[in-house]
Amino acid sequence: MGYKTDIEIAREAKKKPIQEIGDKLGIPTEHLLPYGHDKAKVSQEFINSVQSNKSGKLILVTAINPTPAGEGKTTTTVGLGDGLNRIGKKAAVCIREASLGPNFGMKGGAAGGGYAQVVPMEDMNLHFTGDFHAITSAHSLLSAMIDNHIYWGNDLGIDTRRVVWRRVVDMNDRSLRQITSSLGGVSNGFAREDGFDITVASEVMAILCLASGLKDLEKRLGDMIVAYRRDRSPVFCRDIQAEGAMTVLLKDAMQPNLVQTLENNPAFVHGGPFANIAHGCNSVTATTTALKIADYVVTEAGFGADLGAEKFMNIKCRKAGLAPDCVVLVATVRAMKMNGGVAKADLGAENVDAVKDGCANLGRHIGNLKSFGVPVVVAINHFVTDTDAEVQAVKDYVETQGSEAILSRHWELGSEGSEALATRVAEIADSGRSQFSPIYPDDMSLWDKINRIAKSIYHADEVLADSKVRDQLKLWEEQGYGKLPICMAKTQYSFSTDPTLRGAPTGHSVPIREVRLSAGAGFVVVVCGEIMTMPGLPRAPAAESIRLNDEGAIEGLF
Amino acid sequence: MGYKTDIEIAREAKKKPIQEIGDKLGIPTEHLLPYGHDKAKVSQEFINSVQSNKSGKLILVTAINPTPAGEGKTTTTVGLGDGLNRIGKKAAVCIREASLGPNFGMKGGAAGGGYAQVVPMEDMNLHFTGDFHAITSAHSLLSAMIDNHIYWGNDLGIDTRRVVWRRVVDMNDRSLRQITSSLGGVSNGFAREDGFDITVASEVMAILCLASGLKDLEKRLGDMIVAYRRDRSPVFCRDIQAEGAMTVLLKDAMQPNLVQTLENNPAFVHGGPFANIAHGCNSVTATTTALKIADYVVTEAGFGADLGAEKFMNIKCRKAGLAPDCVVLVATVRAMKMNGGVAKADLGAENVDAVKDGCANLGRHIGNLKSFGVPVVVAINHFVTDTDAEVQAVKDYVETQGSEAILSRHWELGSEGSEALATRVAEIADSGRSQFSPIYPDDMSLWDKINRIAKSIYHADEVLADSKVRDQLKLWEEQGYGKLPICMAKTQYSFSTDPTLRGAPTGHSVPIREVRLSAGAGFVVVVCGEIMTMPGLPRAPAAESIRLNDEGAIEGLF
Repeated sequence: MGYKTDIEIAREAKKKPIQEIGDKLGIPTEHLLPYGHDKAKVSQEFINSVQSNKSGKLILVTAINPTPAGEGKTTTTVGLGDGLNRIGKKAAVCIREASLGPNFGMKGGAAGGGYAQVVPMEDMNLHFTGDFHAITSAHSLLSAMIDNHIYWGNDLGIDTRRVVWRRVVDMNDRSLRQITSSLGGVSNGFAREDGFDITVASEVMAILCLASGLKDLEKRLGDMIVAYRRDRSPVFCRDIQAEGAMTVLLKDAMQPNLVQTLENNPAFVHGGPFANIAHGCNSVTATTTALKIADYVVTEAGFGADLGAEKFMNIKCRKAGLAPDCVVLVATVRAMKMNGGVAKADLGAENVDAVKDGCANLGRHIGNLKSFGVPVVVAINHFVTDTDAEVQAVKDYVETQGSEAILSRHWELGSEGSEALATRVAEIADSGRSQFSPIYPDDMSLWDKINRIAKSIYHADEVLADSKVRDQLKLWEEQGYGKLPICMAKTQYSFSTDPTLRGAPTGHSVPIREVRLSAGAGFVVVVCGEIMTMPGLPRAPAAESIRLNDEGAIEGLF
Repeated sequence: MGYKTDIEIAREAKKKPIQEIGDKLGIPTEHLLPYGHDKAKVSQEFINSVQSNKSGKLILVTAINPTPAGEGKTTTTVGLGDGLNRIGKKAAVCIREASLGPNFGMKGGAAGGGYAQVVPMEDMNLHFTGDFHAITSAHSLLSAMIDNHIYWGNDLGIDTRRVVWRRVVDMNDRSLRQITSSLGGVSNGFAREDGFDITVASEVMAILCLASGLKDLEKRLGDMIVAYRRDRSPVFCRDIQAEGAMTVLLKDAMQPNLVQTLENNPAFVHGGPFANIAHGCNSVTATTTALKIADYVVTEAGFGADLGAEKFMNIKCRKAGLAPDCVVLVATVRAMKMNGGVAKADLGAENVDAVKDGCANLGRHIGNLKSFGVPVVVAINHFVTDTDAEVQAVKDYVETQGSEAILSRHWELGSEGSEALATRVAEIADSGRSQFSPIYPDDMSLWDKINRIAKSIYHADEVLADSKVRDQLKLWEEQGYGKLPICMAKTQYSFSTDPTLRGAPTGHSVPIREVRLSAGAGFVVVVCGEIMTMPGLPRAPAAESIRLNDEGAIEGLF
């Protein structure tokens, strides 16, 4: 078709100095801490200084359940941000940072795609501004201090079989999933079982993304449970006295990163927690800071709306006092077709009936999102093979669901293609129609919260859990953790826990495998299925082809 | 006495924007990649562009064997740099970066001291510009790729008992010194013994500091031996195909960091390899770049001159084609007294006889350094309790050794105190007197090189090694590694391998415990004593007291 690849487009970007981007939001140069000429952190002093500003409008971009066709959630987030700027609005985008390790397995990815991207793409896939390295360091310091405490006499009485604080590294390294540490005799400590997760799975990451500021960060770090004693009483990070030094290691990482879209509009890229065992959104600091200095902030949540938007609403918005003014639900004609039973190879051919059949998934997400009291617009992220009849079929269906769908061509055309979407989203956000509230109150029991999500969002018949799980939830309630929200960890491919069940399944059960307490992040993780917290590398990892060419350009990363 | 602490002085520094510091050396703003307002990397393009410039004069600062009294080698390096600028010379300082992990055990340290420091002190003790994180990432990627290769079938035939590539983390974590990895069954790989070193001990660090550029970096990374097969043949990093991606991870880290002294003079702070199992100097890139844009470059070597200066000359200068124009040997009256048998508690009292007795250590270093063909000046780093008679005793002694000693008061007075030293050093450097050559040729056998160092520098009678060590050296010679220089790993406290033997011992033996091949860095490590490559934390680690106070300032780090 002659279309350029994302990296080709990104490399052609006419980036402006980051000071000019900051200037669009009124950030003075001395409060932009540059990392090279195209990245900067916004200083904590500046963040503090804008707290009394009026907040702008918050727009959440979410999606249907992901299919192999790809939905383009980040692309739409970026395209909508550019579209808002195009129609004269002061708008900023807030998205997540990428994890380093996975780039060496499969090729790295753009932040967005086509003509709706955030740059510099290569830096964002490598060290960026070092936030994840800081998280790895802070996490590793606590790990070292726990074993050091045991080594020097274990005054806290830690049961070395019950150290729940695993180690982390930002690399796909399956060989570290399960290890025995402290081998080699007296001078190396007491042998015990341990293991590594990838950095983005660290509770420190979740905390960094939920903390309201440095004081809150330190408190939450101190609240983390790192081990249990023989009597099952918890040992906290603060018992190890690590939270102060961890906060010092994280103080720069807490400052949001400013970069730019291809159209030189401001984009905050900050934090990147897992979307299964954590809440999967960019940092609260980035979102709240952006809201104080932009009139419209477009952000996104991980996975499909059943997981990502649910957590965005019930965890992030609840905890940070945020309320979305409009939700944009991204869908594609191709994804509708796959939900309608078309194989990936056959997506190129027009198939209006399949589109109609596949709309059930979209419809349920619309209904779910409305249950939070927020207005919903469907963005049909245009793909070049989409036919008018197919697009119209989606629009017609969405109308039957009491919502509206707008075709958006930002991938191909940049902000010119998203003008219509931006105009309508701004209208809705400005209308004051949103009556946001989470779908369960703080003081509902943990078990009831899980049931509420499973029944209201997944449309399941029942939640299944053995008595061990139920007893654990009760114990946490007795210990004062009953008011925490729930963080569901299940497959993103279905409303159910069966990844092959597309569309809008009913009559299914939600079996709970395990529950975990993230006492610092402030949520109870409910695990419904296999959760991988340390990926491996494939047989022929991308790293084998990554290199600098003679011109100093990176090859093989994308 | 009312003297301010290093951190108090550092926090009062009137720092200039880093662009102004770069401007002093003619680095255009677009080629300074800022990290905040007071740190920057010098772009690879700029480095390439100055290669044909005439080189400035290279001044090495080294010291007597360290004593608990402290010698102030970095302080003198910084003070001399400021002194040279004061007398109108265009001078830059080149020193090493600090490792992150150890700061959480013992308190972190300044780069220099008193009024001869490099700032920003706190950043330099924390993440700085992320170089060490990049090294950790590159090292960890190779680790993951080795185990991944084994997991997917081990086509290279790696003997899993003979993987010599250990893992690294930049944290003092004794519990990771020895581990069993890949536990947990089929999906996690083949269980094997492994362990972690601290990042600065990584061969990647040594390579980063010796590589002449990105191409050389990639080649050297590929040359590293990561494992052996059952037939003892080596498996290289390039067999794993990791060196390209590692180079991409290290491309920013290869660019030297520019900061400033308290007097706003340029200082390059780049790289920090171990001074025992590696050569212990800042990067070749920093030194050679500084020489192309400054008229005088003051740099330092690790430990005392028997280890640090020897390796600077025989490894770094040989490999990088550098030749020092003057060597400054730092000594203190207090250290002379300790060498003369005075206890640390009694150092405050005048004791000219003890000073005279202790000068033997100094004298031998002077002689050793002269054997490299370089002119030597002794800098007496002034301490406030030193008496005139004691200082004169040192000066008189140095004169008998055919050298000269100059009192320098930079710690107390900054460049005003180092003007005399700077004037004389510049004269000597300009004189063309230096006739530098390494003390052994490339084509001497490895065994003979070891003997040359032991006899010429340590003044030992003999080198002791069992046949296993000698056979290993011969095998490496057969494999083509015979031309490599030697990297001695022994105690820094004595010319001998016995740390309690002060002064200028004779008649001793140098027993070799083990030899290791750093095929990528390009040296043979000769281990003569206990070498710790992963430190532990003390009973009450400094981290317990490190925190941000209400004003956002770091407490407890210093």
